[in-house]
Amino acid sequence: MTPRYAQRMAKVQPSAIGELLALGADPSIISFGGGYPDATLFPATQLDAVFHEVLRQPGGAAMQYAPSNGLPRLRDQIAGLMTADGVPCTADDVLILQGSQQGLDFAARMLIDPGDVIVTEDPTFLGALIAFQPSQPDYAVVPVDAEGMRTDILAATLAANPRARMIYTVPDFQNPTGVTLSLARRKELIALANRHDLIVLEDTPYRHIRFAGESLPTLKSLDTEGRVIHLGSFSKVLVPGLRIGWAVASPDLLARMGLLKVAADTQTSTLNMAAASLFLDRYDLAAHIVTLRQAYARKKEAMLDAIRQYLPQDITATDPEGGLFTWLTFDEGFDATAFMRDVALPKARVAYVPGESFFPLTPRPNHARLNYSAPSEAMIRTGIAALGHALHAHRSLR
Amino acid sequence: MTPRYAQRMAKVQPSAIGELLALGADPSIISFGGGYPDATLFPATQLDAVFHEVLRQPGGAAMQYAPSNGLPRLRDQIAGLMTADGVPCTADDVLILQGSQQGLDFAARMLIDPGDVIVTEDPTFLGALIAFQPSQPDYAVVPVDAEGMRTDILAATLAANPRARMIYTVPDFQNPTGVTLSLARRKELIALANRHDLIVLEDTPYRHIRFAGESLPTLKSLDTEGRVIHLGSFSKVLVPGLRIGWAVASPDLLARMGLLKVAADTQTSTLNMAAASLFLDRYDLAAHIVTLRQAYARKKEAMLDAIRQYLPQDITATDPEGGLFTWLTFDEGFDATAFMRDVALPKARVAYVPGESFFPLTPRPNHARLNYSAPSEAMIRTGIAALGHALHAHRSLR
Repeated sequence: MTPRYAQRMAKVQPSAIGELLALGADPSIISFGGGYPDATLFPATQLDAVFHEVLRQPGGAAMQYAPSNGLPRLRDQIAGLMTADGVPCTADDVLILQGSQQGLDFAARMLIDPGDVIVTEDPTFLGALIAFQPSQPDYAVVPVDAEGMRTDILAATLAANPRARMIYTVPDFQNPTGVTLSLARRKELIALANRHDLIVLEDTPYRHIRFAGESLPTLKSLDTEGRVIHLGSFSKVLVPGLRIGWAVASPDLLARMGLLKVAADTQTSTLNMAAASLFLDRYDLAAHIVTLRQAYARKKEAMLDAIRQYLPQDITATDPEGGLFTWLTFDEGFDATAFMRDVALPKARVAYVPGESFFPLTPRPNHARLNYSAPSEAMIRTGIAALGHALHAHRSLR
Repeated sequence: MTPRYAQRMAKVQPSAIGELLALGADPSIISFGGGYPDATLFPATQLDAVFHEVLRQPGGAAMQYAPSNGLPRLRDQIAGLMTADGVPCTADDVLILQGSQQGLDFAARMLIDPGDVIVTEDPTFLGALIAFQPSQPDYAVVPVDAEGMRTDILAATLAANPRARMIYTVPDFQNPTGVTLSLARRKELIALANRHDLIVLEDTPYRHIRFAGESLPTLKSLDTEGRVIHLGSFSKVLVPGLRIGWAVASPDLLARMGLLKVAADTQTSTLNMAAASLFLDRYDLAAHIVTLRQAYARKKEAMLDAIRQYLPQDITATDPEGGLFTWLTFDEGFDATAFMRDVALPKARVAYVPGESFFPLTPRPNHARLNYSAPSEAMIRTGIAALGHALHAHRSLR
């Protein structure tokens, strides 16, 4: 392509991790790599029933174009779910998105000029970094501990970054670390956003996959100045193949996101919205979520048991209260990317996501994200045993 | 919202026509306003069958995450359709999009910096102007006649616009005028793009809704330098509610669009892609398209007959060889926007799309776009009669 276009096209860069992850798609590999929910838990029979019903409705409305911001009934139902979760709102406060991923894209397009700073956890969700990248942000990062983002450090970070415009956070069972932002820190984050005139992008794809304890209030429910853009998703509580997410935000922000929706793809699939809406009418989503929680809690325990049994003892794994991931920490100097490429994939036939991609600024290669939702308990045990064997063998070679 | 964000958010502006069109959604109004295909022609029974089958496939793959560029089988099938239509290609040349609208958004995001010039027909598709707007282009416009874009004037326009970066065209049964770019002009357009180092964005949502004559070669099939981004869509030949479109472009351009896809929404709905793919395997799309052509040809004739019968004789309507629209030209000085707001909607209870929104630079209010695909033949006759009555009455008041 000619030089004239090359500079413009350079706005969009490939992710370094993409090719490595593609290798993990080989079915002979036990993959802890994807953020995939457990397909055996998909409500296939119910979805079959609701798709059948919407496709046979007289008039064919489910197959036709729909309002850009989403079917009114579905927005109303989601407003009901949000209200029950502590964010009083109506259908007008809800924008249906093509997965919550689209909300990440829209927030950056709407708020970030090149060189503006996005503040994130360190590490943070890789997919968000990919979504933000075409808007060409700079980053300031804040470490996390067992209580989530270090909001004491956040205060100093904001003071040092006058170009900060948005705080991006995954406050419940964060991807990739699994940690949850404590209530005290949620309040501090909101206070800091108010003080520094920032937007907060709250991304909650795993919020309802909670194994123990009570849900903490969303940042949106603590938002006193209309600064929080709250993103939700059905991908982990229904099925990812529907691609239905949503944003709840102040009228000003939501209206702008709505205009971006018209521009970006006109609408999310009418069929999928209609089917999801009918599912919520016909079936008990809360009961389905209870089933998911129980199943994922068992799988998490299976993985942590296997890690304790098979991996070298000094490798630590987070024990999240919910979500789909555990985050491993290896000793300093260990390169999880090289290990996956040279040992885990070809020899142990196991994939994970090397941790360094999740760091916006300074990669720390001695980490890995492991997903326990997708593989069966038997495959978890087998895969972790093989990984442990390879790690032990690797050490004896030093 | 604070001033700091207002400037950034101003990148996204509402469409002036949106509110007026929303009024036309009232079911007591006969609407010629939408670009809606005829819902009575939707293959509901077949879609019901394929959704049922994909939802009950063991393993639930249709409900899970899918590759970002689209299910390989569907890309392969689309490559087959493109090859049969004169563009030899394989699955690797195809990117699945959230409707072809997403291709408009991606092309602008990838190629246009603020102030770069997009060259379009005058008038052009309003939805494209909405898609391009966040990238903040300037426009240069080229009039159309019965053979489509005036490529003789295009040559002068390009010479006068060194910041031109992209030519956007709907060469088959254009929205809104219905005209088709002749073969001679297609070759001239490609030659001019080559000479001036431009990308050509070829948008073909109506291409297969042809009533008479033979399809002309796509611009993509005439592309010698990899400059044409070809967008296709199932919205008008299957159903809009699936939101499945595609791009075919040179590897460089397609790869960048693929990265934008990962960033923008991760993927189009797996379920819809799987169902569309199975539909193409099970059923005869070409036979379905023949049915659509016959039905829409009849409706076009019904509308043109009614226009000849009921509207003042000096109002002209295009007689397209395909597509969903006819374009009316009223006398100079007639304001179709005001007439719709003040007379057609409230009194005649008829909606159309006022033409002025389709002009990127200088609006010409004495036009209207009428859609004949959505309403029944009876409603076409009734609505055009009411419109004609109102127009005659309006004249007698002058």
